[in-house]
Amino acid sequence: MNILLIYAHPEPRSLNGALKDFAITHLETAGHEVQVSDLYGMGWKASLDPDDAPGYDAETPFNPALESQRVFAAGSQPADIQAEQAKLLWADAVIFQFPLWWFSMPAILKGWIERVYAYGFAYGVGEHSENHWGDRYGEGSMTGKRAMLVVTMGGWESHYSGRGVNGALDDLLFPIQHGVLFYPGFTVMPAFPIYKTSKMDAARFQSICTAYAARLNTLFSDQPLPFRRQNHGDYEIPALTLKPHLAVGRCDLGIHIGDGERV
Amino acid sequence: MNILLIYAHPEPRSLNGALKDFAITHLETAGHEVQVSDLYGMGWKASLDPDDAPGYDAETPFNPALESQRVFAAGSQPADIQAEQAKLLWADAVIFQFPLWWFSMPAILKGWIERVYAYGFAYGVGEHSENHWGDRYGEGSMTGKRAMLVVTMGGWESHYSGRGVNGALDDLLFPIQHGVLFYPGFTVMPAFPIYKTSKMDAARFQSICTAYAARLNTLFSDQPLPFRRQNHGDYEIPALTLKPHLAVGRCDLGIHIGDGERV
Repeated sequence: MNILLIYAHPEPRSLNGALKDFAITHLETAGHEVQVSDLYGMGWKASLDPDDAPGYDAETPFNPALESQRVFAAGSQPADIQAEQAKLLWADAVIFQFPLWWFSMPAILKGWIERVYAYGFAYGVGEHSENHWGDRYGEGSMTGKRAMLVVTMGGWESHYSGRGVNGALDDLLFPIQHGVLFYPGFTVMPAFPIYKTSKMDAARFQSICTAYAARLNTLFSDQPLPFRRQNHGDYEIPALTLKPHLAVGRCDLGIHIGDGERV
Repeated sequence: MNILLIYAHPEPRSLNGALKDFAITHLETAGHEVQVSDLYGMGWKASLDPDDAPGYDAETPFNPALESQRVFAAGSQPADIQAEQAKLLWADAVIFQFPLWWFSMPAILKGWIERVYAYGFAYGVGEHSENHWGDRYGEGSMTGKRAMLVVTMGGWESHYSGRGVNGALDDLLFPIQHGVLFYPGFTVMPAFPIYKTSKMDAARFQSICTAYAARLNTLFSDQPLPFRRQNHGDYEIPALTLKPHLAVGRCDLGIHIGDGERV
């Protein structure tokens, strides 16, 4: 299969760098094709701005969504954006690997999302009316592709548990797993978290690699997170609220998991 | 009072630009001192990398936290970072204004957090042992300062309601309001959200400005979000899990609100 690794850490000689190298070797040994987008290594431009819209008329206000739509439709996006979109279309699965900085992805990766996720490519796809609010949340251009987050953290697992002070990891990652991955149609696999990164020795690194290898081996057979699809009856249209008979009375993020329970 | 406005939108002639200008005028007319960090206008460097650590020895692996600690302690941080830290120390309140892009802040603002929030300044503050896990979540360098998010969205209010398909806005903003603002000690005010931004006319803009003015007028008297403080008895140390008798049996993000209910 074709696997794309999006990697965002500034230091190759780091735990993240070692995990990236391990994944590449493991996947290639298993017979997969692997491409890597090493965002720091590529000098990825992080900030979305008018330079991303060749031909933009500076006499008019810059509207990021409409300019994205225009250059995507015209095939005139910058080459770095087009190359990443081509990798996404090539991939059967995409792994996003990054350190959790301030409870989200590093800015350089956020900017990858903002620039590569063009209007017409990752959003603004499908009929958009008061009867059908776009092909999104379970439908869209990434349908049929799997995605998984590999996330490193300095904190302890308990700090990110359901009652941990940082917030439950699945809730912290909801804007990414649901809002960035499920939105354009990815099948979202449970994240692979690595805690307490400052307490690492060779034995622990080896045990993490063993667990990571097991996850990679079953990337295409494991059960994904059962997020509810927007356009399959669970939500009112166009209010896009979960119908009252589902997850009755609840307002937590777990209601968007189909079985009504936290996975 | 001294008010700092951190603003992240690429187009001055936009709704966001107009709201920024409105806030500056309104606050100055009310007698406040205002400073603005217009991140796009300043050409803010978004990605944290070794250039942020003058004197870094490239023979050794780059550790972002340890290098941040070193240059902060030595007073050798880049000038752009030092200037933003000085603004934070000057401010009595900080407003972060941005469009919600992919359910979080724009990359350029995320990069502002990553670079300005130095080790020893915004984290790594206070005793850090198995008895006291740092001065954070209600304590820290920003203690006594208020912070508020002003966030624009294309979607409808119902889409971001407690049962909306995007996830409840307060939950989507938890990594920012709790993880970025409450963490270094800010008193966090409820966000000021602006929905359905593509449906804007003069009358609606005026009504939004009226509501925004009211929030600015009471910035120093409104009740903040009652997040639970880490070091005041609600959490086990060092597991940092909420004690079992609080928010009994729950694992949603709302448990970190002191009254046990969503504000």
